[in-house]
Amino acid sequence: MACVLCFLLLRSSYCKGSKILVLPVDGSHWINMKVILEELHSRGHEITVLHSTKSWFITDNSSIYTSIHIPTLSDEIDMNFFSLVSLASEVLQDKVLIKKLKDTKFDLMLTDPAFPMGVILGGYLKLPMVFNVRWINNGESHQSIAPSPVSYAPVSGSELHDQMDFLERTKNMLHYLYNLYELYVVINLTYTDLFQKYFPPGTDLVSLELSADIWLCRGDFIFEFPRPTMPNMVYIGGFQCKEAQPLPDELEAFMQSSGEHGVVVMSVGTIVSALPHGITEAIAAAFAELPQKVIWRFDGDKPSTLGKNTKLVKWLPQNDLLGHPKTKVFIAHGGTNGMYEAIYHGVPVLGLPLLFDQFDNLLRLKVRGAARVVEVRSLTKDNFLEALKDILENPSYRENSQRLSQLHRDRPMSPMDTAIFWIEYVIRNKGAAHLQSAGFGLPWYSYFCRDVAVFVLAIIGTSIWGFIFVCRLLCCKRSSKKIKPE
Amino acid sequence: MACVLCFLLLRSSYCKGSKILVLPVDGSHWINMKVILEELHSRGHEITVLHSTKSWFITDNSSIYTSIHIPTLSDEIDMNFFSLVSLASEVLQDKVLIKKLKDTKFDLMLTDPAFPMGVILGGYLKLPMVFNVRWINNGESHQSIAPSPVSYAPVSGSELHDQMDFLERTKNMLHYLYNLYELYVVINLTYTDLFQKYFPPGTDLVSLELSADIWLCRGDFIFEFPRPTMPNMVYIGGFQCKEAQPLPDELEAFMQSSGEHGVVVMSVGTIVSALPHGITEAIAAAFAELPQKVIWRFDGDKPSTLGKNTKLVKWLPQNDLLGHPKTKVFIAHGGTNGMYEAIYHGVPVLGLPLLFDQFDNLLRLKVRGAARVVEVRSLTKDNFLEALKDILENPSYRENSQRLSQLHRDRPMSPMDTAIFWIEYVIRNKGAAHLQSAGFGLPWYSYFCRDVAVFVLAIIGTSIWGFIFVCRLLCCKRSSKKIKPE
Repeated sequence: MACVLCFLLLRSSYCKGSKILVLPVDGSHWINMKVILEELHSRGHEITVLHSTKSWFITDNSSIYTSIHIPTLSDEIDMNFFSLVSLASEVLQDKVLIKKLKDTKFDLMLTDPAFPMGVILGGYLKLPMVFNVRWINNGESHQSIAPSPVSYAPVSGSELHDQMDFLERTKNMLHYLYNLYELYVVINLTYTDLFQKYFPPGTDLVSLELSADIWLCRGDFIFEFPRPTMPNMVYIGGFQCKEAQPLPDELEAFMQSSGEHGVVVMSVGTIVSALPHGITEAIAAAFAELPQKVIWRFDGDKPSTLGKNTKLVKWLPQNDLLGHPKTKVFIAHGGTNGMYEAIYHGVPVLGLPLLFDQFDNLLRLKVRGAARVVEVRSLTKDNFLEALKDILENPSYRENSQRLSQLHRDRPMSPMDTAIFWIEYVIRNKGAAHLQSAGFGLPWYSYFCRDVAVFVLAIIGTSIWGFIFVCRLLCCKRSSKKIKPE
Repeated sequence: MACVLCFLLLRSSYCKGSKILVLPVDGSHWINMKVILEELHSRGHEITVLHSTKSWFITDNSSIYTSIHIPTLSDEIDMNFFSLVSLASEVLQDKVLIKKLKDTKFDLMLTDPAFPMGVILGGYLKLPMVFNVRWINNGESHQSIAPSPVSYAPVSGSELHDQMDFLERTKNMLHYLYNLYELYVVINLTYTDLFQKYFPPGTDLVSLELSADIWLCRGDFIFEFPRPTMPNMVYIGGFQCKEAQPLPDELEAFMQSSGEHGVVVMSVGTIVSALPHGITEAIAAAFAELPQKVIWRFDGDKPSTLGKNTKLVKWLPQNDLLGHPKTKVFIAHGGTNGMYEAIYHGVPVLGLPLLFDQFDNLLRLKVRGAARVVEVRSLTKDNFLEALKDILENPSYRENSQRLSQLHRDRPMSPMDTAIFWIEYVIRNKGAAHLQSAGFGLPWYSYFCRDVAVFVLAIIGTSIWGFIFVCRLLCCKRSSKKIKPE
């Protein structure tokens, strides 16, 4: 024990006051990144955040970071691959900005590779790089980071789990092949001109991504399906979770008024705040039939079917509510942050997935018996109520959630301390190249040993052919000998 | 920081006084295992060690464990696969022993799968299992634990590193195929009768090994080549290392007498204590030409060429000597323990590999610029002296060793604390099945998706054939139409 503490004390003094350059992705990705930045700031690091003037959530004035503006997309242009390329070009062309960044002599680029701008800029400035990722771009980089056999490692977006039958494995394979196509053809080729102009020959977006020193992955194997991992992948799922704080008096009174029945908490995220009217009517009607109380983070017209037990709020202290002993079920869209908060506090989930990885996230909880899922497009009052009552009345959901919570908290180091450790590790050691795969530089046929297979098969084939040839020769000789005397 | 401490304090109280059954492998494997047992004992666990009455190193009387005898091999029988099977049979047939073990209600089987007795007994008693391994049996179980691409993950025993050319990859592939044959045919089939008699249908030695909850691997990626790993593999390389203690007065005086030149420490392990006479003469003659002092752990006839600077000893405090500031080079056979002690203290190595994995171990240090290797069979005074002087005079060897030492010590938790954490984790959670690959149960053609590939290719083939068939049909119709009017 003393050993661990002395390990950490010794180390924390090494790289205080390091200069960290951050290029985040906006939206819920930024919410994640900011939690890490706050922790880095509290440990004495100087943080500079690059963002556009039109950021949704990233503000100019912050006590934890210095803000630098980068060119922004005009409103007309969609966030497609081509506009991202021209944006990256603009940044690299901005000589004043690049000089400023070079002169600051940053120790690290911390970025989210969901959009490649940070990867490109970090590579251009030759900075050690740490990624903060949920899913590795395009199907968890099945091929590139660690070989994840398609037979038991479901590709993200496939909505499959790790126990697949033949047709599911076929579906997974097709997803995998499509992802390879998207990564190597669609995305990588789009950046060809940019890389030819600004980078040494042989560099492309994929190779630059693979040169990252550490990948901080917002996953945990109590939630993710076990899969092979290279040593520079570090799992930090749930790093934003913390013990619940006391609720405001009014909310606490509401929680207590639920008595023995407890409370249902509903929130479907920041991006889709309003569900279709018909759906909210059905949900409100179902809630009205419950003995429980309900707190619903709600935007839009108040449902006509709303019961007296249901409280609509514009915002709710999600973590504190999930950690409250009266909370029985969390109704959620399946965003990663919410899922880890539910796991941390051991609360079962009723999932209403809407977008992105929400389907995959909820599937993982469902497989572990800690969630049920209702598809929004087929949601009715009856099927919603049936699923909700099932979770409330069947103790296995809560037991499974509590078991996940126990396992999630049972790790050598908290996920946040783990994240900070590895960020500071890269700063201290000026990179972590020794943890990277030697397979990255190989052409595909060498990586998969196809050339070796052809060579070995050719030798075997030639040997067999040679053997048959010699046998025939001997037979012919013998038979010709036999013929002659006759 | 406080968080980590509280995490650990909280946890250490959970599983104190657990009953741990240990079936070790004798020799240097036992030296390793014993270090872990001492630590487990100091944390309040009750340890029972199963061993034969003819053990080399494992004693009956110990303050840290209770000893239970198991049947032993008679002296006539070699340690081959068949004798190991009959030994395992004898243990499982011993009703008194089995009853005693069952009645004790152990919480865990801690074993070394280098010999499979512990795996078989742990499986038979249905205990959660933790393995303490150096190399995973037969080529690091390339296929079974984590897919390690043959293109960059060298098979143990191949004496290859992770940057391979075409012929080296071919050699690695042949090693890999041979290992598969040995694991699945030679070893696994030998145990068929035993498994049919004592285990449920479908169980074999490989499946039992793969059901282990945690594999504690005596590796570290500053030494091992980076390769993919499943989440239930935990790397604890160097767990036995500790800071140097003061030397006995006489030895300290000898070290100090070396002045600015420093000392060369030589020890070639416990198994081969005596090198051939011609070799020791050459080595002694080379030592005699050095300005350094030399401490040589030596068994046999004193070399006639011995210089005054060389001190022969029957035993030496290796860790304390390696940690001494006067020590300049460690001459070693390349056993894993010695390599990690050299890395821990940042001392460069001159390797004289003799057996087993010593060649692979030394190769890893050599690739990192922290060692040179001299083959014993071609050792002469001149080539030995040249290599030794190179290490002594070229500062890069020491710098590289120091860099490895710094990286090795830079981890979130010491290797020993990591080992204990995961052993207690398995006890606390009654296993760690959620970290195991779902691929273990699949037949090989499904694991490698060969069935899916055949299916997809068949569909593509049929589609192309159908397309051609329809085209031909249309062409024929058109040409027959053309013909008719004429």
